[in-house]
Amino acid sequence: MTEHGLRIGIAGITGRVGRLLVEEVQAAGAVLAGGTARDPARAAGLPEGLALFPDMAGLAAVSDVVIDFTHADTVIPHAQALSNHGTAWVLGTTGLSDAQQAAVHQAAEKIGIVHAANFSAGVTLVRRLAQMMGQALPAESYDAEIVDMHHRQKVDAPSGTALAIGEAVAKGRGVVLADVKESGRDGHTGPRKPGAIGFAALRGGQIVGEHEVLFTSPDEQITLTHRAFDRRVFATGAVRAALWLHTRAAGYYGMEEVLGLPPC
Amino acid sequence: MTEHGLRIGIAGITGRVGRLLVEEVQAAGAVLAGGTARDPARAAGLPEGLALFPDMAGLAAVSDVVIDFTHADTVIPHAQALSNHGTAWVLGTTGLSDAQQAAVHQAAEKIGIVHAANFSAGVTLVRRLAQMMGQALPAESYDAEIVDMHHRQKVDAPSGTALAIGEAVAKGRGVVLADVKESGRDGHTGPRKPGAIGFAALRGGQIVGEHEVLFTSPDEQITLTHRAFDRRVFATGAVRAALWLHTRAAGYYGMEEVLGLPPC
Amino acid sequence: MTEHGLRIGIAGITGRVGRLLVEEVQAAGAVLAGGTARDPARAAGLPEGLALFPDMAGLAAVSDVVIDFTHADTVIPHAQALSNHGTAWVLGTTGLSDAQQAAVHQAAEKIGIVHAANFSAGVTLVRRLAQMMGQALPAESYDAEIVDMHHRQKVDAPSGTALAIGEAVAKGRGVVLADVKESGRDGHTGPRKPGAIGFAALRGGQIVGEHEVLFTSPDEQITLTHRAFDRRVFATGAVRAALWLHTRAAGYYGMEEVLGLPPC
Amino acid sequence: MTEHGLRIGIAGITGRVGRLLVEEVQAAGAVLAGGTARDPARAAGLPEGLALFPDMAGLAAVSDVVIDFTHADTVIPHAQALSNHGTAWVLGTTGLSDAQQAAVHQAAEKIGIVHAANFSAGVTLVRRLAQMMGQALPAESYDAEIVDMHHRQKVDAPSGTALAIGEAVAKGRGVVLADVKESGRDGHTGPRKPGAIGFAALRGGQIVGEHEVLFTSPDEQITLTHRAFDRRVFATGAVRAALWLHTRAAGYYGMEEVLGLPPC
Repeated sequence: MTEHGLRIGIAGITGRVGRLLVEEVQAAGAVLAGGTARDPARAAGLPEGLALFPDMAGLAAVSDVVIDFTHADTVIPHAQALSNHGTAWVLGTTGLSDAQQAAVHQAAEKIGIVHAANFSAGVTLVRRLAQMMGQALPAESYDAEIVDMHHRQKVDAPSGTALAIGEAVAKGRGVVLADVKESGRDGHTGPRKPGAIGFAALRGGQIVGEHEVLFTSPDEQITLTHRAFDRRVFATGAVRAALWLHTRAAGYYGMEEVLGLPPC
Repeated sequence: MTEHGLRIGIAGITGRVGRLLVEEVQAAGAVLAGGTARDPARAAGLPEGLALFPDMAGLAAVSDVVIDFTHADTVIPHAQALSNHGTAWVLGTTGLSDAQQAAVHQAAEKIGIVHAANFSAGVTLVRRLAQMMGQALPAESYDAEIVDMHHRQKVDAPSGTALAIGEAVAKGRGVVLADVKESGRDGHTGPRKPGAIGFAALRGGQIVGEHEVLFTSPDEQITLTHRAFDRRVFATGAVRAALWLHTRAAGYYGMEEVLGLPPC
Repeated sequence: MTEHGLRIGIAGITGRVGRLLVEEVQAAGAVLAGGTARDPARAAGLPEGLALFPDMAGLAAVSDVVIDFTHADTVIPHAQALSNHGTAWVLGTTGLSDAQQAAVHQAAEKIGIVHAANFSAGVTLVRRLAQMMGQALPAESYDAEIVDMHHRQKVDAPSGTALAIGEAVAKGRGVVLADVKESGRDGHTGPRKPGAIGFAALRGGQIVGEHEVLFTSPDEQITLTHRAFDRRVFATGAVRAALWLHTRAAGYYGMEEVLGLPPC
Repeated sequence: MTEHGLRIGIAGITGRVGRLLVEEVQAAGAVLAGGTARDPARAAGLPEGLALFPDMAGLAAVSDVVIDFTHADTVIPHAQALSNHGTAWVLGTTGLSDAQQAAVHQAAEKIGIVHAANFSAGVTLVRRLAQMMGQALPAESYDAEIVDMHHRQKVDAPSGTALAIGEAVAKGRGVVLADVKESGRDGHTGPRKPGAIGFAALRGGQIVGEHEVLFTSPDEQITLTHRAFDRRVFATGAVRAALWLHTRAAGYYGMEEVLGLPPC
């Protein structure tokens, strides 16, 4: 396999997602280059002899690609370190400030970056299909609603992925989501606003993530649903993005391009 | 059929629900005694020779049972008129004040009353089953969530029926709904409160009414869903209640008793 | 409106679908040119003065477009009559023999024809999306299953639309549906065949039509569902096809083109 | 905890379910008495020093309760060994012959037995609720359909649990399932038979088990769904049954009684 030579580093390797990434890198037959760890004492259970680094500079130097699901706070130093070393970046961090977003785009002039809110193949496809549905089903007749369900520990609503699906529908309709968003209905709401995109959030158990977008007209309803059974699906997709990125020129990419979906 | 002799009156007979009730009374083989109508000019399309009355006093005098889906405002005078004539009452009005509720209970000492928020057989059953689920599935492990979906014109959320299902779950758990209700999640919500009963509302198209209650534990999920296809289901249930009430003693009843569900 | 001048004829105008088509033609502001009727005595309730014809020759002579939801048996004479008069054809008949299919294609050299198994905008979109899902979600990982639910009178399974969705998935995967179809599992079935497309049929009540396609991998599931609330959705789509066809050259078209979906 | 003293043995301890049972016994704070194993060489990963026995006689001698998810073939010798030692029995084996079933009932005169096709709390509740639905929703108006979805390896359809839910509906309706069962519709089926209980089976991915029962009338639909997220739910329920059984007299019990559901 040609991937045998690809050296993949993992930011935040001692966390829950980091450990899944270790398994998926190994399953893909790539080289596990090492990881960053705030507290190396938490490395129990990771492969013996694994190279741990206190920050991105060290990891970037030994990796061809780094997968990074850490925090918005570290985006600017990570962008610096990775572009200094010409190391590609798979970035899953969301909620970036304008300055952080700008740092990512600046780095993309030197290195290849795949940046996504959700690395599952299914969610990427759902967003693309939701955009087509928004385009084909006019807002005058079809009311769009988006529901997400997540585990009981989740602290915000709607989920980032629900909002990303809403943005896809809005894009299909040629509107800006912020102008038509209707979220958290409770009490006296008045009638649904024409053209609104509604959001509702369910919480319970240990649900990894379920998302549903409904288009309802007086005569018919079309519903698209995604259920993630296992958090591993995100790690699998991130490693797939790393392998894909290896052969690309510098630039800012999304998961749609990794999956080879036709441009919309 | 023994129902042939039963005289059923309809409050608000010229409205949308009133007209469905006319059809269902006729389909059941009962006598259509007449109706109240604010504006008799709106009676077009109703049976020829139908007796219209400006208020309940006249209708009560010629009916064995009156079906009433009008307004909370008319509950006190209706209670008076119906108990004066010993006429039974199928009452679908919700959102009663304490004084209005008291008037209904006082009337129930003299006449038979079926009072319900939703006369569909299915919703009545769903409430009973939701109570059993609340009892059997402990709140420590199973998070309860209730979703309603209704047409785009609906002005409040959650629906009255969603709240009634929530009350059934709360009753099964021996808690008060107001203490555990979590509705309209949006923004930074924090984690789900242990024991909460959550609500979410979807709006779109001309959906007559869909309700779903989900119990989700880390290991399994049990979901109970009701979909009303046609508003007629409420009229059918109300006429069924009227026929049932005919042979009952004075008292305050619910749809559970009309359907013969075992007490819970 | 430019449609005011368009003359639309309806084959089988006295039937259930025919009557819905009459209403939709009028609602669209087109001219109702008349209809064919085996038994003109069944015309009660249709507009006064409506032109009824015993066969297609008469109707074709007075129509710009004819909408035809009749039988496979009449396809060959209808093709002849319509191409003789240069009258366009919206054809909803399925289950054609090879000879019948050939007659349709031959007529399409002279007249414009929209031929579809299902004229609902939603189902047309669902088929297109199902094809994309088949293409993007590899059969090695994602098992495809299709469920249809219809009213209790339906005599065959799976439904024609379920099969059409299955064909769309198969096309997306580059396989032939007949080679991978697995329908009506019962008893000792053995394990699911790799690459199979499964079908299951539910029947009950007066369900107009529900279709669902599920793609399930070990890690995630993507589901696309269509629910028709009202048979009218098919009439609306057929009239939309007639209006669209009016300005087209001779040719054989599908609903995808009427809706302006990008080619796949 | 009072359970600390209870000694639980596990038949087939080296299998997939056996290993989950080990974890659940330990989590419940009971004593793991040992297990039977055809091939002790497969014990890798089980607790050190675990007592392994070639057959039930040895395990029964050191256990207060034995949990047994093995095969129908071993039911008769297991019944013998357990009743000889007065050891209680949690039995999850299905598909028993008449002779095997008789052996279980004979043993129940001497020891406590919980015998169930599915030990999940949710499925047990769903069966009870399905029976109530069958009773409350008359077959003339409400068509009952049952769908199961399982992983791609499953070799039979419908699932045992789907059939058990169907039996619950049939019991609620006072009919025999075999007389009304309609399974695996395909091709020309004719219209749905009045009073039928329909079955359909979906297969895909690694779905642990989903079951749905739908009651559909022309006016409404009530649906009850169960999703098992993790096979562990069966082990948890079996250990719960073992703890419950500890304090019971000899007899043949079901999971309904373990959960304390009111008799139906």
